[in-house]
Amino acid sequence: MEFKITASSGQARLGVLGTARGTVNTPAFMPVGTQATVKAMSPEELREIGAEIILSNTYHLFLRPGHETIQRLGGIHKFMNWPGPVLTDSGGFQVFSLSDLRKITEDGVEFKSHLDGSMHYLDPALAIEIQHALGADILMAFDECTPYPSPREYAEKSLALTTKWAQKCKEAHERISPEGGARPALFGPALFAIVQGGMYRDLRERSTEEITAIGFDGYAVGGLSVGEPKELMYEIINYMGPMLPAEKPRYLMGIGDLADMLEAVEAGFDMFDCVMPTRNARNGTLFTSRGRVSIKRTEYKDDPSPLDPECGCYTCRNYSRGYLRHLYLAREILSMRLNTIHNLHFYMEFFRQMREAIKKDSFKEFRQKCTDMTTTTQ
Amino acid sequence: MEFKITASSGQARLGVLGTARGTVNTPAFMPVGTQATVKAMSPEELREIGAEIILSNTYHLFLRPGHETIQRLGGIHKFMNWPGPVLTDSGGFQVFSLSDLRKITEDGVEFKSHLDGSMHYLDPALAIEIQHALGADILMAFDECTPYPSPREYAEKSLALTTKWAQKCKEAHERISPEGGARPALFGPALFAIVQGGMYRDLRERSTEEITAIGFDGYAVGGLSVGEPKELMYEIINYMGPMLPAEKPRYLMGIGDLADMLEAVEAGFDMFDCVMPTRNARNGTLFTSRGRVSIKRTEYKDDPSPLDPECGCYTCRNYSRGYLRHLYLAREILSMRLNTIHNLHFYMEFFRQMREAIKKDSFKEFRQKCTDMTTTTQ
Repeated sequence: MEFKITASSGQARLGVLGTARGTVNTPAFMPVGTQATVKAMSPEELREIGAEIILSNTYHLFLRPGHETIQRLGGIHKFMNWPGPVLTDSGGFQVFSLSDLRKITEDGVEFKSHLDGSMHYLDPALAIEIQHALGADILMAFDECTPYPSPREYAEKSLALTTKWAQKCKEAHERISPEGGARPALFGPALFAIVQGGMYRDLRERSTEEITAIGFDGYAVGGLSVGEPKELMYEIINYMGPMLPAEKPRYLMGIGDLADMLEAVEAGFDMFDCVMPTRNARNGTLFTSRGRVSIKRTEYKDDPSPLDPECGCYTCRNYSRGYLRHLYLAREILSMRLNTIHNLHFYMEFFRQMREAIKKDSFKEFRQKCTDMTTTTQ
Repeated sequence: MEFKITASSGQARLGVLGTARGTVNTPAFMPVGTQATVKAMSPEELREIGAEIILSNTYHLFLRPGHETIQRLGGIHKFMNWPGPVLTDSGGFQVFSLSDLRKITEDGVEFKSHLDGSMHYLDPALAIEIQHALGADILMAFDECTPYPSPREYAEKSLALTTKWAQKCKEAHERISPEGGARPALFGPALFAIVQGGMYRDLRERSTEEITAIGFDGYAVGGLSVGEPKELMYEIINYMGPMLPAEKPRYLMGIGDLADMLEAVEAGFDMFDCVMPTRNARNGTLFTSRGRVSIKRTEYKDDPSPLDPECGCYTCRNYSRGYLRHLYLAREILSMRLNTIHNLHFYMEFFRQMREAIKKDSFKEFRQKCTDMTTTTQ
């Protein structure tokens, strides 16, 4: 993997991430394809809205259909007919948020599947093996996502475990990688590690020091947007951005609110993922240049205009608000399709505009202009 | 509307139906778009699989969003972004099958909405007004669908009511039609009427005589596949085909089993509609050249081959059985999309082959060859 910064505006960076399966322009938003499909979308539609990379979930694919099945079927790209780059998370977050009855030891986690209650075990080496079996382009190290609130003592122990596991992940990755780890290929699969440390600045610093000392292809910040106040999250985003190595991609995990991403790009983050555009779409909440719109509102019943007159997506080119409202109220599958296309197109366009603003060194001005869009709800 | 028979094979007919919005080759299958969307499909996908006409439901659109809303939004074609021909049923069947508490009088039916329990009223004139407001290309007369079993006396009264209502529908249609009814435009909206009569041959004959005496652009057979034994249905299909006027389209309503449609095409029917391909798709039952397949079966878990190696649809060109099984078990929206594309493509291809066989005057041979496909279930 190759990463180059090509421009900046304040701390905001414009970059290009080169992978074996194509180039990703950063700041980049990764649509979430939890179960090897971005809900309601075809791969062609993802291409059309401008997605360059998607995220998929190790935990979900490990449980169903199983990574070995996906490997036998030619890897995740062939499996889901998406030829572009795929980043897989490590499963850490889901083990801690979705499964019951988890038992953490120094070595790994035993947990109960949220699907059928069956018992499973994940550890750093296995998480990496699974991601290699899936054929991901960017792998994430297995971490413990520190809950909020956590006492300092717990956060400290937790970050130590994450460091230990990151080391094991790197060893497993080098063992499995085609190049044997001696000198990873320029475009071989990349491994990113995750900084934890809860809400404690000095622990975040310690985690960063330990993780960067091991050395990875990119660095992520985990354990945010877990219930903490927004001010605290912004404070951490702002000191974490510059704290991470400048020459590597910086990935802020799971945060996809427009205003939050503006804050994070301004702090120097490059990569984002979130279910917000896709989940909101299915729930009838749509992002527009004039703010959020709830499509079920009565005022749209006879409205012949497109959802967002300034939008050029398939949905806005071909369908009225009246039809979108009808489909939503009738719980039609096409409702979820058209809404998802629009929301993801909106996100992709938002990122394109962010990149344009960084290129023109006018990121602050761009952010100012977004105020209406990010705060209005109709 | 224009209808020409261009070839035949036994009683099976090859025809061309000309409408203002395009040509329909018959025998034709009409995908069902109940709520102004063929479930899980985009209009472009309908085009790609070769659909030339779709059916939509007056009852459903009357209740939600309301025909006046659709009219204000430019009519059903603009509303749903489908520029091709649309046939709307009259609502008769749904009033009798979906709603509670219906009260039938000589004039019309009062019924309770299946959506919210609100009371509504439909009569022949209103059913036609609604279909004109929707902007349908082919309208259906409002009938009473005789239940099974019905004593002869009930069926007799019911067919008399259907005749009376058909007359009223024609009057309403001529009043509303742009040409004022004096001389309907060649490509103006067409009105079909429905033959009832229960399971009684002489009543079916009487209904046919009465309905054809009024005179319509096409004739449909209703009140079949309502619980009667298959032998009885086949018997009725076989005498009803030749009984209907030869120079007009013959439409067998709501019957979409492959073997049943072969029987009906051989008896001289031209048009069909059924939710079977779309509903089965969503339930994971797929039609293939080797018979029906239940995609959830364990044997497909690691199967890299396409669902049907002989199929050229988008799904079979791009996805494995293993992936389709995974999507189905994960209840993903893409499962319903890919399965629906396949099943509808299969139906369209089946009809294309039927038309080819009629053209070559080899319909019986074609039907013979279909035995495996129509009887095998995997």
